[in-house]
Amino acid sequence: MSQESGARVAAVVTAIDHVGIAVPDLDEAIEFYQETYGLVVAAVEVNEEQGVREAMLRVPGDDGTGTAIQLLAPLTPDSTIGRFLAKKGPGLQQLAYRVADIEETSEALRAKGLKVVFDEPKHGTQNSRTQFVHPKSTGGVLVEFVQPAD
Amino acid sequence: MSQESGARVAAVVTAIDHVGIAVPDLDEAIEFYQETYGLVVAAVEVNEEQGVREAMLRVPGDDGTGTAIQLLAPLTPDSTIGRFLAKKGPGLQQLAYRVADIEETSEALRAKGLKVVFDEPKHGTQNSRTQFVHPKSTGGVLVEFVQPAD
Ligand SMILES: [Co+2]
Ligand SMILES: [Co+2]
Repeated sequence: MSQESGARVAAVVTAIDHVGIAVPDLDEAIEFYQETYGLVVAAVEVNEEQGVREAMLRVPGDDGTGTAIQLLAPLTPDSTIGRFLAKKGPGLQQLAYRVADIEETSEALRAKGLKVVFDEPKHGTQNSRTQFVHPKSTGGVLVEFVQPAD
Repeated sequence: MSQESGARVAAVVTAIDHVGIAVPDLDEAIEFYQETYGLVVAAVEVNEEQGVREAMLRVPGDDGTGTAIQLLAPLTPDSTIGRFLAKKGPGLQQLAYRVADIEETSEALRAKGLKVVFDEPKHGTQNSRTQFVHPKSTGGVLVEFVQPAD
């Protein structure tokens, strides 16, 4: 890609950050992912604002630079994940890309005409900052952008 | 995890290999992923047996050890991806884990009671060998296992 076309890229993605999977019961799902795939739990936390209890799982030896599996369980039925489970059942829910600057990314995506969800980036997993793009703008994929904590 | 519980892991996953996304038009999708996310095309190929034209895209600088985005377009409406698009529309379709030994993995998954799709592993992208596990066995996720080419 030439520098000129590179300059038109909306989001300078540095990694596939994680794949988010909706699950009805977080503890059961964690056990399944450990026993079936040998994944290792890197973090478990509650995000009240987003109505979710979640876990980040990684391949053994991944220091955090690789791609994680994010298991997402609803705190309430009317949360985003609660409604996803009711409508579509458990399964793949989101795809998250890592970026260095979430503000710049949000603006560039808006400038490109994509439907960016939050007015301002929000607090995400492990003190990251996070933004979403609506599936209508991305070919049916709920896309998240994550700027990791410093 | 103790060595004892490690011994009960069905699939010794070494990486999140790729995330598969169903798209109606491969060339349009490739252009979107390049221009929006800055991803780079690592391979484009046709798999007649699986009825798919597909592309592997990577984050710039990923030499193949990282996680790829696999864009999957149907060759015919009655292919797996064609039927997925008709039923669910474009979007996240599969999650693929990398393993060192696809035969051993298939057997261990069967022994654990998971619904493994192919009797024998099949030819996959970039001369890999591939196996699938039915979403009913995995919490709603179509899971693929990939043994890369030597
Ligand atoms: Co996420
Ligand atoms: Co695949």
